[in-house]
Formats: sequence, structure tokens, C-alpha cells
Amino acid sequence: MDISKLRVAALATNGFEEVEYTKPRKALEEAGATVHLVSPEKGGVQAWATDDWGGIYDVDKLLSETNAADYDALLLPGGVLNPDILRVNDEALSFVKHFAQNDKPIAFICHAGQILISAGLIKGRKVTGYKSIRTDLRGAGGIVSNDEQVVVDNNFISSRNPDDIPAFNEKMLEVFAKMAA
Amino acid sequence: MDISKLRVAALATNGFEEVEYTKPRKALEEAGATVHLVSPEKGGVQAWATDDWGGIYDVDKLLSETNAADYDALLLPGGVLNPDILRVNDEALSFVKHFAQNDKPIAFICHAGQILISAGLIKGRKVTGYKSIRTDLRGAGGIVSNDEQVVVDNNFISSRNPDDIPAFNEKMLEVFAKMAA
Repeated sequence: MDISKLRVAALATNGFEEVEYTKPRKALEEAGATVHLVSPEKGGVQAWATDDWGGIYDVDKLLSETNAADYDALLLPGGVLNPDILRVNDEALSFVKHFAQNDKPIAFICHAGQILISAGLIKGRKVTGYKSIRTDLRGAGGIVSNDEQVVVDNNFISSRNPDDIPAFNEKMLEVFAKMAA
Repeated sequence: MDISKLRVAALATNGFEEVEYTKPRKALEEAGATVHLVSPEKGGVQAWATDDWGGIYDVDKLLSETNAADYDALLLPGGVLNPDILRVNDEALSFVKHFAQNDKPIAFICHAGQILISAGLIKGRKVTGYKSIRTDLRGAGGIVSNDEQVVVDNNFISSRNPDDIPAFNEKMLEVFAKMAA
């Protein structure tokens, strides 16, 4: 598949789950895509690595200075702290809504579904997410899978946790390539 | 008010918001109540102080060795990490349900409402919580207030964030004293 012209925004802030950003980014870049870490924070953001702070990553684009229309697809890493901050940030919700409203693909994993709940994008959609947020995904009207590593519903690709990353990356590349074609 | 015979369980694990435990505990103890920190973790648990790890607190009772029937009332501090862990812990959910099923008071603040969502206790109840979880409280069938410092609905006392603690403590003491009388 050729995704060498694909521009992907990875939206995250402090406390994103490290491997849920680094591994999908690596898979996308190895397939030739351009990936930008977009964040409300300037300079760098600190990851979360399972149960404590992880590495610090350069922010490529400040959210307030970024136009969602410049990107073809969206990657939303999880982590417990990161989506809790982004889901109450109006700029972040507008950014995410742009992709949904323009049928651009959104790949989200772990707790990142919380952002889609707050953006009002879950109703009637087949999704999965970290076990702790599945009640909330159902409360938001989602059709929620407990036991699949990755769920694809048109432009939504979702996974449960870091163990699902290989399956998540595979479907993400497939859907991103198809929708960008 | 006399709450000198009141036994209160404060259920928490790593990542609970520090002041949402220390300040209500202090208010309860100053009024004469006995408070036990109950946790699935042995020894000690580490608090969260706004945007990073906080102090370590002694666990008074291990959750697996504790009988909810030994307590008259429940305090649930928030924090982002702590309720996310407790809401998928079956022992924690059973512990919380005991209080609801026996009309014992439950005081919860910030993100702690997530635990009540997962315990299935929010439907039809007037509550509030941290701004990020209000969509989820509504999705769970709660009648959710945005702009009150503290909401009382029979045995439920809930508040939004650490700024509400003075109002939270006042109503908690009032309801705990009335229901324990």
C-alpha cells in the first residue's frame, strides 16, 4: 500500500501512553506517511509509561496554530491523563470533529475514546476501548466490543490497550491507505 | 452534630487526589469520626497533587480483608488515575454497592463518580463531578449539575473539584450525622 502522501496528525498532551504514540507513529512513518505530533502544549509533552511518567517528545505543531484541514487522518493515543485533559479542550474537540465530519479516518486506542465521547461522535458507532471506559462508550450510544483487538467501523479504527497495537497498526495502515486513495 | 461513633471508609488507590482525601478526612476526624483508608494496595498508596505524584499514605485496611458492613459511611476521593483503577476492580465495586444498597451515605468528588457509573449506581440520581466526566454521568442516566459546588440527593453527596472541598465537607458532615443518627 502506498501512503507516502498521507499527512497524519497525532493529537496528544501530557500523560499520553508512550507506546500508543511511538509504535503507531513508527508504523506510519515506515509506510512513508508524514506524522505530526499536535498538542495544546508548546515545545514538548511527557508520555506515561504504564504506571509512571515516560519520555518527553517534541511537539511538531501547536494545536492553536494548526488547521485540521491540513491533515488526511488522525491518530489518538490513549493514557489515562491525556484524554481527560483533551476532552475538555474545545480546540481539541473541534480538531477531532473536523475528521469525523469530513469522513477522514480516526484511529484511537485505550482511553482516547473518551475524547470522541465528549465530541459527540460515538452514538451508533461500533467501537472498542480500555475496559474502564466501555460503560461510558455504551452510555454515549456506542456499540461496544469487549473481545476484539481492533474494531473498524467505516472511518473509525479502535483498539483496547497496548497489547492490541500490532493489530491496531495493521488495520490503521489498511484503512488510512484505502481512504486516502 | 455528634458523629463520634461514625466509622467512615475512605476507599482509594494510587493516584487519588491528595487534598480530596486529606481535607475531608481531617474534617471527619475533627468532628470525632473514625476514618480508615481502605485500598486494594498493601502498606501505602501514593497521592496525586494537581499535576504530579504527591505524598504516600498508610493504608489502614486492605480491601480484600475488609467488610463494608463494618462502616457507616463511604468517602471516595477523586484524582484521574485512582477511579480508573477502582472502577474495574470487582471488590471495589462490591464494597461501594454495599453502601448504596443499605442507604448508607456516599460522599464522592471529582472523578470518583466514575466508580459509581461502573457500579451502576448513577441512573436517576442528582449528582455532579469533574467537568470531564459529566458527559459520562449523563450517559449513565444521572441528573447532572454543572454549577453547584455540592449536590445532595438522599445519601449521595457529590462535588466537582478541589475548590469545592469546603462546601463538600460541610454537606458531608451534615448528611453523615443525620443518617448515622
